[in-house]
Amino acid sequence: MKRNVLIAQGGGPTAVINSSLYGVLREAENYSQIGHVYGAVHGIEGVLKEELMDLSMQDPAQIELLPQTPSAALGSCRRKLSDEDYPRLLEVFRKYNIGWFFYNGGNDSMDTCAKVEKMAKEFGYDLVSIGIPKTIDNDLDLTDHCPGYGSAARFVANNVRDLWMEVQAMPNYVTIVEAMGRNAGWLTAAAALPLYNGKPCCQMIYLPERTFDTDAFLADVDDLLHRQKEILIVVSEGVKDSSGEMLSTQSGTDSFGHKTAGGSSEVLSALVTEKLGVRSRAERYGLLGRTSSITQSAQDRDEAIAVGRHAMKLAMSGVSGVMAAIQRDSTDPYIWSLSQAPLEKVANLEKMFPDAWIAEKGNFITEDFRRYCLPLIGEPFPPFAVLDRIVPQPVVD
Amino acid sequence: MKRNVLIAQGGGPTAVINSSLYGVLREAENYSQIGHVYGAVHGIEGVLKEELMDLSMQDPAQIELLPQTPSAALGSCRRKLSDEDYPRLLEVFRKYNIGWFFYNGGNDSMDTCAKVEKMAKEFGYDLVSIGIPKTIDNDLDLTDHCPGYGSAARFVANNVRDLWMEVQAMPNYVTIVEAMGRNAGWLTAAAALPLYNGKPCCQMIYLPERTFDTDAFLADVDDLLHRQKEILIVVSEGVKDSSGEMLSTQSGTDSFGHKTAGGSSEVLSALVTEKLGVRSRAERYGLLGRTSSITQSAQDRDEAIAVGRHAMKLAMSGVSGVMAAIQRDSTDPYIWSLSQAPLEKVANLEKMFPDAWIAEKGNFITEDFRRYCLPLIGEPFPPFAVLDRIVPQPVVD
Repeated sequence: MKRNVLIAQGGGPTAVINSSLYGVLREAENYSQIGHVYGAVHGIEGVLKEELMDLSMQDPAQIELLPQTPSAALGSCRRKLSDEDYPRLLEVFRKYNIGWFFYNGGNDSMDTCAKVEKMAKEFGYDLVSIGIPKTIDNDLDLTDHCPGYGSAARFVANNVRDLWMEVQAMPNYVTIVEAMGRNAGWLTAAAALPLYNGKPCCQMIYLPERTFDTDAFLADVDDLLHRQKEILIVVSEGVKDSSGEMLSTQSGTDSFGHKTAGGSSEVLSALVTEKLGVRSRAERYGLLGRTSSITQSAQDRDEAIAVGRHAMKLAMSGVSGVMAAIQRDSTDPYIWSLSQAPLEKVANLEKMFPDAWIAEKGNFITEDFRRYCLPLIGEPFPPFAVLDRIVPQPVVD
Repeated sequence: MKRNVLIAQGGGPTAVINSSLYGVLREAENYSQIGHVYGAVHGIEGVLKEELMDLSMQDPAQIELLPQTPSAALGSCRRKLSDEDYPRLLEVFRKYNIGWFFYNGGNDSMDTCAKVEKMAKEFGYDLVSIGIPKTIDNDLDLTDHCPGYGSAARFVANNVRDLWMEVQAMPNYVTIVEAMGRNAGWLTAAAALPLYNGKPCCQMIYLPERTFDTDAFLADVDDLLHRQKEILIVVSEGVKDSSGEMLSTQSGTDSFGHKTAGGSSEVLSALVTEKLGVRSRAERYGLLGRTSSITQSAQDRDEAIAVGRHAMKLAMSGVSGVMAAIQRDSTDPYIWSLSQAPLEKVANLEKMFPDAWIAEKGNFITEDFRRYCLPLIGEPFPPFAVLDRIVPQPVVD
């Protein structure tokens, strides 16, 4: 008797989570033991509410568009399961004869997936549970990197490149950009990737993994202002001071002594103007970078599809309680393959940005990271023109 | 005797101002009376400081990259000329034997260009002065639209499309996005362009041309929340209340009674949460959209090049004191040609968004604008998948 597949998408959307869904759906076609593939509407919440959709009955032309469709086509959620949820989950699994359950998400989703697997065993329900990694933050461990990260990193790299052109054209500004990442600095670090005229497009980068030292920061900016009029700085939303408090929560005070709100870039921008007396401007990516379809990395997309397919193959081979993962076999040339990791291990680990890849002074990223990340963001950016400052000869009157 | 060309870029950078520079440079090759083409470094300020660069001596391969290079390759400025500047300008023009002067910018640059033309006449200096339009705001009159607008509008349209996918995936949010534009709403209106599943990707749009009515806004949001959980609203940074004060300067108060800073989206987002009790999120494009290379509109780029070439042709035909302009000959199919307009007229006009193109209630944009704008943003966006909510059949136990 055929049994059915259930897949859910959890946590923050990405540019390629639907690519993994596509991989699962296309791979499922190869197995006659699969009846239908169902999708849970808005993650595990859709299972609890019995809000499912039949993915096997969709227009195939629409399925083919999934890889170029950003965000989470099934809908996502951030629901943490409590003990009383499990009997209900099992009830829905039984009702729809679910034999294979896939959860595509980050740490929390892997945790949920591990718990579903454990619950099924306890209740004696025959279920295979497989995790599919997804996060723009790249903070899942036991996989070289996460689908979703390459595209988000491409967004950051691309925009830092554009902003550097802008900053150079209108100088006398310290421009401070805030990139997403409360705990892990992987995404912010991508600001180190683009070069213009052989030099990085931003001059300083600060990650949450290193304690933020305000005095050292101001000294660095001051020093650099003696050498160039235009400065571009990229900072994680989650940078913290020595007490562990995020800068973004330490709102400044305006000229009336009132507290002002703002993220880390706004706090630092106000500080630069106050302490160094130079104009400063704060920029923030916000949600824009998370699901940017136009900066989707083709490499990321291909890997996301492959990881989805791999998850289905693992499930069909009878393995359960694992997350499909990506293994890096070589960096130069970039060669990758597919692997797996126990869900329970993954769920309890958070992969921080390696300290060895942060410059000694804590204000930039090393070349080792560039080598790690460059293959993930896909094809090189088209070059920008570099004009020489060739001084014209005056006419002798 | 050969004379030289001087070109300067003024005001905020765009994705295609270097395309117009490219058009000027390539067209200049056709005229034997031109010696060199010089660029002023950082706009008219570079002329005053005698900071020029020889564009005729650059690596041709780099010149070929100009159309794909965003921002202002020569550097820009926002300097307003005063009376004592004119003798100095003339001195530099004489020193470098400038016969033709081009200023590529917005209203202020056209004003500067008109003044330079007038000054040369007064001092009896033989000079042709031509303006080249450029602005993301599309607020220059006597041209159907401005180079730079199509690309910036493409950025807005593209991001609204991506954000709508994100908002649908994580509902129960009122997401309010702030687009650039303090006086003119052209750029914000581009949020009306993208459709998903046949419907606009945002539900409300507010421009500075209409007085913002807070009560009507809250009533509209409240009404819509009864019909859908997810709402995307796009608002100009310059929306004003009935007293003419910008919302963005009316910072709210936090729970301690302190004033909070923020743009129009943050003010409105706080208002929605306070008055309607629903979660709300503010997003802001900031500088990101002004020079986005990846959302450059091919149509915009081609027109920017053509306008640059046309400016040079006008100059060589002996015309002076005009701005090269774009004329729309037909909307469907889109047919355009090149025209010209007197600099002095252009300098004193600001083209506001037509009231007839704003929906009666002031909270959306009409179909007429979509027809006007769609050809300008270039090739259609690749489609996103639309999945049907096909409900699965439960298994009868």
